[in-house]
Amino acid sequence: MESVIEQMKSFFEPKSIAVVGASTHIMKAGYIIFRNFVQNKRANIFSGELYAINPNEDFILGYRCYPSLSKTAAEEIELVVIVVPAEYVPSILREAHLKRTKAAIIISSGFSEIGNHLLEEEVKSIAKKEGIRTLGPNCLGVFDPHTGVDTLFLPETKTSITGKDMIATPRPKMGKMAVVTQSGAFGVASLDYLAGRRLGISKFVSFGNRIDIDETDLLQYFMADEKSDVILLYLEAIRKGERFMEIAGEVTKVKPIVVLKSGKTVAGAKAAISHTGSIAGSDQVYNAAFEQTGVIRAGDMEEFFGISKAFLFQPPTFGNNVAIVTDAGGPSIMASDECELRGLKIQDLSEESLCELEKMRDIGEIPKFASISNPIDLTGSVTSEMFEHTVRVVFDDSKINAVIFLGLHHVPGLQEDFVDRVASVSRRFLKPIVSCDIGETEMALYIRSRFEKLGIPSYSSPEDAAMAIAALYNYGLYLKKKNCFDTYLEKYRNKRSLVIDIEEESISRTDGLISRM
Amino acid sequence: MESVIEQMKSFFEPKSIAVVGASTHIMKAGYIIFRNFVQNKRANIFSGELYAINPNEDFILGYRCYPSLSKTAAEEIELVVIVVPAEYVPSILREAHLKRTKAAIIISSGFSEIGNHLLEEEVKSIAKKEGIRTLGPNCLGVFDPHTGVDTLFLPETKTSITGKDMIATPRPKMGKMAVVTQSGAFGVASLDYLAGRRLGISKFVSFGNRIDIDETDLLQYFMADEKSDVILLYLEAIRKGERFMEIAGEVTKVKPIVVLKSGKTVAGAKAAISHTGSIAGSDQVYNAAFEQTGVIRAGDMEEFFGISKAFLFQPPTFGNNVAIVTDAGGPSIMASDECELRGLKIQDLSEESLCELEKMRDIGEIPKFASISNPIDLTGSVTSEMFEHTVRVVFDDSKINAVIFLGLHHVPGLQEDFVDRVASVSRRFLKPIVSCDIGETEMALYIRSRFEKLGIPSYSSPEDAAMAIAALYNYGLYLKKKNCFDTYLEKYRNKRSLVIDIEEESISRTDGLISRM
Repeated sequence: MESVIEQMKSFFEPKSIAVVGASTHIMKAGYIIFRNFVQNKRANIFSGELYAINPNEDFILGYRCYPSLSKTAAEEIELVVIVVPAEYVPSILREAHLKRTKAAIIISSGFSEIGNHLLEEEVKSIAKKEGIRTLGPNCLGVFDPHTGVDTLFLPETKTSITGKDMIATPRPKMGKMAVVTQSGAFGVASLDYLAGRRLGISKFVSFGNRIDIDETDLLQYFMADEKSDVILLYLEAIRKGERFMEIAGEVTKVKPIVVLKSGKTVAGAKAAISHTGSIAGSDQVYNAAFEQTGVIRAGDMEEFFGISKAFLFQPPTFGNNVAIVTDAGGPSIMASDECELRGLKIQDLSEESLCELEKMRDIGEIPKFASISNPIDLTGSVTSEMFEHTVRVVFDDSKINAVIFLGLHHVPGLQEDFVDRVASVSRRFLKPIVSCDIGETEMALYIRSRFEKLGIPSYSSPEDAAMAIAALYNYGLYLKKKNCFDTYLEKYRNKRSLVIDIEEESISRTDGLISRM
Repeated sequence: MESVIEQMKSFFEPKSIAVVGASTHIMKAGYIIFRNFVQNKRANIFSGELYAINPNEDFILGYRCYPSLSKTAAEEIELVVIVVPAEYVPSILREAHLKRTKAAIIISSGFSEIGNHLLEEEVKSIAKKEGIRTLGPNCLGVFDPHTGVDTLFLPETKTSITGKDMIATPRPKMGKMAVVTQSGAFGVASLDYLAGRRLGISKFVSFGNRIDIDETDLLQYFMADEKSDVILLYLEAIRKGERFMEIAGEVTKVKPIVVLKSGKTVAGAKAAISHTGSIAGSDQVYNAAFEQTGVIRAGDMEEFFGISKAFLFQPPTFGNNVAIVTDAGGPSIMASDECELRGLKIQDLSEESLCELEKMRDIGEIPKFASISNPIDLTGSVTSEMFEHTVRVVFDDSKINAVIFLGLHHVPGLQEDFVDRVASVSRRFLKPIVSCDIGETEMALYIRSRFEKLGIPSYSSPEDAAMAIAALYNYGLYLKKKNCFDTYLEKYRNKRSLVIDIEEESISRTDGLISRM
């Protein structure tokens, strides 16, 4: 028997696909999904065979429409996407078997989430009997930017009253985050968040009622998937606790899993039951399970994305001594508070570092009113060069494990090149650094986005920056305990040097910074 | 003797002003500040007399420059802004006295924050002796969009390497938030945040080392200031505890104070000492003081702005029964969790409401798979009308005190008018409502901004929406306890009807929504 990893390929890179319930009505899911494939095929992103199935249509977007799977000439249809009312799903699965279908994505809702357990059980047993691996029902299915599989049935654009088109359901660019979600709505929201923040994904999977493929299968797949460096998992309940723990514990030895587990209170658990019919179980049990398996649990949505971003860009650490380099006294206190609350230490620098900073202060290489005890506050008189030199001293300090760079861009002496200077220094080290710039206008957004282009995750509040370092520290501790830290770091180093080569080249080819925004 | 409220007017609406240390060097604070006044005078925003003082310059921006305050012909200079090295400040204050100066803003640093306590004491005693009310030293001073007083010395624009100008220190539009800050850096960051989120301010005051005017004076002033509805206060330490408690307790009876108090941990307190020389004191004592005086304490920066926004737009409530109306199952669980964690209840609707929703479901006015137990999930089949009707039922329910509207815009049936429909229903009630839409791309930003234009604070995560309602509830409880709830609500009702009249008019004059973005 094929492994689940092999089987999953039928969802992500099928040689042939049929959309059952394909439609010409442009608001219908069956139209939107079929159109996704047609568009991706025309753009040479999707390369498989494509079939439209609907007894009431002749042609859809130039494709002949077949009344049923069996009426197609295909000997084999590897993946079937089902968008018909729930009651028709069993017969379609039976028919799919005749076309040697290996995988089905059941988009349709109307199963256990509304109390229709019998129908769900029937579908489940047919799929099992016929050997069809199934995603859903009541899900969004798959979006894979590499292969063009895209079963998201939400309209990509909406036309406003004034006639302007706006992107309603954006697809993020290609990247290294794998997004796995039990909730379709939260899944779409994630795509919108990641696209807006310019973070890329490797694959997106919404599994809904999971009669077959569940979170653990997906973890297993993404563990082996070289396109994925970080796994983002939204869950309302774990299906099979023991198996989850076994697999998750293996995955986290090689790549981080960041989980957002909702239903943690009585009110939340009650809401979860009426949503996907999930029984949430005790939150303490979940906490213990995540801790034991090295799964990083986010406290809320912002943390979920913020932590994932930290893992995407930076290495973990198993030391908790943090240095803060800043030009902003108040915000550095806020960061210090959050560090302590999350188990990090604002560590005194070594004697050597203090001497060096003192010397720099004496000869005017940093401002004469600079505070050189940690947080190192270069004050509003800072320049880009001063930040560069100070960050170097701090990285060089063997007492320091991680750096929070809190350089607000507003001060007069700071030109935009401070981002590149800090990034350039940080690349020579394998210690994590995160940055923070506060503000929501153009330049603040630009500075944060520039940091991330150069591999430093950037946050809009001091507390979020501290939170990110805490996550890198907790994961580093776990890796160390499992004796996997060195292997992980080595892999990180290799991946980073690849990325940096490309980035350095792109920098040297461009004169200005703004043009690279 | 004049009250502090009268005296403060010299800072915000001075008839004459001198910038001591005005400069022609465009990177210098003395240039930037003087230019602010010149620009605002030319634009007819600032209407006072304006003097440049600097012994080494003849003209600055077309203004004659005087070697000292005494060489000007003015009989009186109401406000003096001082931007010279610390050691010259005492003699300037003495000279200012001869010009009957009522107020001084000392921008200069180099006082207690670097251990120069003697000089600070000297300045303090001169100001006291000469009867000059003083802001600072080591501060940014004042920005008042109404009168054009603007002592922010940070460059408003920066020119990038490619020659493009970017706004580095944005000024928010006029509005109802008063921003009071001990940290200059956090102050500038706040302006950037508020400008980017299109939230307006009434006044901005950074008080730095506060040898005279402190947070309590400012609270007293803003209590009486009709242009300010919400007071945002960033603090590292309270100067005079008893007086603060006395005044804050009075202010909160008529308008909310939202505080971000940093230095809450040992690490944070240590950082605060080296920043403004403040001894933070026990955090528990602060918590108790804030609770007793009805000051709302924000847990972190995002909460600080998020809570303030809630007070700006919505009324408080003293009931904790919340209804969630949504099209997004997963996110509604996240909101339910956060509600419970913050002391709110996801309350069952009344029998009448349930009957009505059931009937609506039967006749197809809401989707047949909608879940009508709270959270009320209209699923991905929702339309704008369905949201409108459901929100009306929920507002009408006497068991419900507050509403979280969690309508993700991505679903096919939702057109942008859902925002206007929901806002329109909510205006007929005096119960608070907040909204959430998740996403960071154009349409999500547009939807959130549209909600806020129509008076509904809008958040980018379910947890933040719950946090906002919790703050409105806690403040409502406090007002109720102090027997001030009804008066507050009446005042809110009057202010809102004014705003709504203007808004309704602007809506009726415009056809599309996008054009009103």
